[in-house]
Amino acid sequence: MGEIKPLPYFKDRYKVDLVFYVDEIVQVLQDRFSQHGKPVLFLLYGKSTDSGNYSKPASFEGIEKFDTDLGTLHPILTECRVIKSEMELGLIQYANDVSSEAHIEVMRQAKPGMKEYQLESIFLHHSYRYGACRHCSYTCICATGENSSILHYGHTAAPNDRTLNDGDMALMDMGAEYNFYGSDITCSYPINGKFNSNQATVYNAVLKAHNAVISHMQPGVKWVDMHKLAEQTILESLKNEKIIHGDIADMMTRRLGAVFMPHGLGHLLGIDTHDPGGYPEGLERPKEPGLSSLRTIRELKEGMVITVEPGCYFIDALLRPARDDPVSSKFFNWEEIEKYKSFGGVRIESDLYVTAQGCKNLTNCPRETWEIEAVMA
Amino acid sequence: MGEIKPLPYFKDRYKVDLVFYVDEIVQVLQDRFSQHGKPVLFLLYGKSTDSGNYSKPASFEGIEKFDTDLGTLHPILTECRVIKSEMELGLIQYANDVSSEAHIEVMRQAKPGMKEYQLESIFLHHSYRYGACRHCSYTCICATGENSSILHYGHTAAPNDRTLNDGDMALMDMGAEYNFYGSDITCSYPINGKFNSNQATVYNAVLKAHNAVISHMQPGVKWVDMHKLAEQTILESLKNEKIIHGDIADMMTRRLGAVFMPHGLGHLLGIDTHDPGGYPEGLERPKEPGLSSLRTIRELKEGMVITVEPGCYFIDALLRPARDDPVSSKFFNWEEIEKYKSFGGVRIESDLYVTAQGCKNLTNCPRETWEIEAVMA
Repeated sequence: MGEIKPLPYFKDRYKVDLVFYVDEIVQVLQDRFSQHGKPVLFLLYGKSTDSGNYSKPASFEGIEKFDTDLGTLHPILTECRVIKSEMELGLIQYANDVSSEAHIEVMRQAKPGMKEYQLESIFLHHSYRYGACRHCSYTCICATGENSSILHYGHTAAPNDRTLNDGDMALMDMGAEYNFYGSDITCSYPINGKFNSNQATVYNAVLKAHNAVISHMQPGVKWVDMHKLAEQTILESLKNEKIIHGDIADMMTRRLGAVFMPHGLGHLLGIDTHDPGGYPEGLERPKEPGLSSLRTIRELKEGMVITVEPGCYFIDALLRPARDDPVSSKFFNWEEIEKYKSFGGVRIESDLYVTAQGCKNLTNCPRETWEIEAVMA
Repeated sequence: MGEIKPLPYFKDRYKVDLVFYVDEIVQVLQDRFSQHGKPVLFLLYGKSTDSGNYSKPASFEGIEKFDTDLGTLHPILTECRVIKSEMELGLIQYANDVSSEAHIEVMRQAKPGMKEYQLESIFLHHSYRYGACRHCSYTCICATGENSSILHYGHTAAPNDRTLNDGDMALMDMGAEYNFYGSDITCSYPINGKFNSNQATVYNAVLKAHNAVISHMQPGVKWVDMHKLAEQTILESLKNEKIIHGDIADMMTRRLGAVFMPHGLGHLLGIDTHDPGGYPEGLERPKEPGLSSLRTIRELKEGMVITVEPGCYFIDALLRPARDDPVSSKFFNWEEIEKYKSFGGVRIESDLYVTAQGCKNLTNCPRETWEIEAVMA
C-alpha cells in the first residue's frame, strides 16, 4: 500500500489541530475532557426521508467509557452542509464545468447505431481523462427512446444497453464528482441531431419550466411554489399544443401535473447527490402526488446549491389510471397523447447556486434547440 | 426503475426450473421438502484465507423454521468454481481479449507529461466503449516510477495521480470484467517507449520467469514449485547481472527471493479476481516469506484458470533488513543495487488455462521488449 505517512502529514493535509493514532482515542479523549466528569461524545445520527433509514453513528473500541448524545450534532452539521462555503462552491462549480464539457462531447459523438453504454463511456472518459474526476456522483442514466421515461434507468438490471435509433430522444443524466463534491446534470436531445415537431413540443415545454423556475429563484422563495410553477408551465404548454384541455388551475388542484412529472423539481446538492437538510425538524414531507417526491420543501436561502430538473414523460403506468378515472380523464386529449406512446420523456437539469438577489446557474450546457442542433452538427 | 418483469421472464433468463416471489420462500420450501420432517437448508459459509473473514450465509424471514447446514455446501461449490466450464472459459477469454486490446491502446498513448490516471481512463474507456465491459475486476493499478514497487498502488489514498516522467517504468495492472467473470493482466514498459539497459535487465529477468513457469505448467505440477521456479529464475538473472552473488540454492533456502518478489506467483481467477478454492480442507497456508503470500499451493488440474505474475521490485522496506542481517547481506551487491534505488519494479501477468497436456495463455499482450517498443512507436 506504499509508504506509511507520519502523523504531521495528516495534520497538515486535513488542516486539523491534533492528530493521534486510532488506538489512542480512548486515552486522548479521557485525558483532555474528563475535568468535569465522564465526557460526552456528540455522534452523527439522522434519518433519510427518502429511505427511512438512519445513518450509523461512529463507534470505536472503548466507546462505552463515554456518554453519547445522538440528537444534537446531526441537525447542526446538516445545516452547515446546506449553506455552501466558497471552497465548497468552487468544487461544485469545477465538477459542473467538467460535466458540462463531457455532456457536450457526448452530444457530438452520439449517433444512431451506437449503444447507450457507449455514450456513458464517453462521458466517464472525458470527465476522468480531461477533468481528473475518477467517480461520478451517481450511476449514469443514458436512456434513449422509451427508456427515457424510466426515471432511474441505467441501474444494474437495465445497464444502458439499448441500441440508439434514428428518431429516438436521448435523456442523459450524468454528473462527475471531484474531491467528493458532485454535480447532477441532465441533457435531452434527439439522437439524429434534429428535433422533430413532437420532440420540440415536449422539449420546449420543459425548457420553459426550467427557465421560469430559474428566473423566479431567490432567497425567501418556497421550493413547493417553484415545483408548482414548473408543473403549471408544462401544463400550459401541453394545453397550447392540445395535448390536454380544460382549466389549468383545476388540474393543479387535482395534482394532475404529477402524471407528466412524477418526480420532485430538484434537491439540495453537495457531498451527497441528494444532500441532506431538505427536511429539518418541523418540516414534514408532503403526501400529495408529485409533491411527495420532493426532497426538500424549504424556503431558498443564500448559499444553497439546488438542482432544477423539470421533466415531462409519457408513462403508461401513470396515464392508465388517469384515463380510467372519469373526472381526471376529461382533461386529457387521448388521441393526441397516443402519438407520444413510445416517446419516453424529457428532463432538463441544471445546478443552481442561490445568491443574495437571485441565483447563478453553475451548469453550462447548450439548452435551446438550435444550440443543441448546432453542437450535434 | 422500469417495467416489472413477470416470473416466466426470470425462469427463462436464468435457466432455472422454478421461480417464485421472495415472500413465498418459506411456504414453497415447506410444501416441497417436508415429507421427511423439518427440511435442511444447505447454506454457503466459508473463510477467506486472505482476510480471515467468513462469508455471510443467506437468510430470509422465517429461516428459523428450517434446520441449516453451514459446512457441506461451501467446499462443494468452491470446487465447482475451481474447474471452469466451457462457458465460463468463454467469458474469461472474452474479458482477456478486451483487456489485452485496451492495454495495447494505453501503451500507444502513454507518454511523458501525462498523469497516471489518464492511462487508467484510456483503459476503462476502451474496455467499456469497444468491449461493453462496464466494470473492472479490481481497482486499476497505474504505477509509474517509484510507485511501481507499491504492490497495491492506485487505491483511494494513492489514486494514480503522479505525472509520468521520461525515464520512468510503468507497471499497469488492469483487467476488465464481463458478465461477472474477470481478467487480471499486468504490462510493464518504459514510458518513453525505449528500454534502457537497467530496465531491460529487470524486465527480461521477470519475462524469463514468466515464460519458464508457463512452459512447465501442466496437470499435477505443484504451484509452490512454480513459485520457486519463478524466484530462482529471477535470482539467476540478477546474479548474471552482478546485482547479487553467491549460491542461488543457498539464497532459495534462506527465502531471499522474497526480497525481490514479496508476493505470490499467482492465484485462481474467475468470478472473483482472487477466486476461492486455493486452500481446500487439508492444505495449510505456508508461513515462509514469499510462500506465505500464495493464494493457493494446490497441484494444477485441467480446467483451472490461474494467473502467472512474477515480479521483481526494489523496495527499501525489504532491502534494509536484508542489508542489516549479516548473513543475508553478503548475497547482495549493494553498490549495484544502489543504481536501482528509485527504479520501482516490474511485474508481468498473464491468465493461464490449464489443459490436459500443458496450458493455454488467455492473455495476448506484447511481451518481448522489441514488441513493446514497436507498439509504442
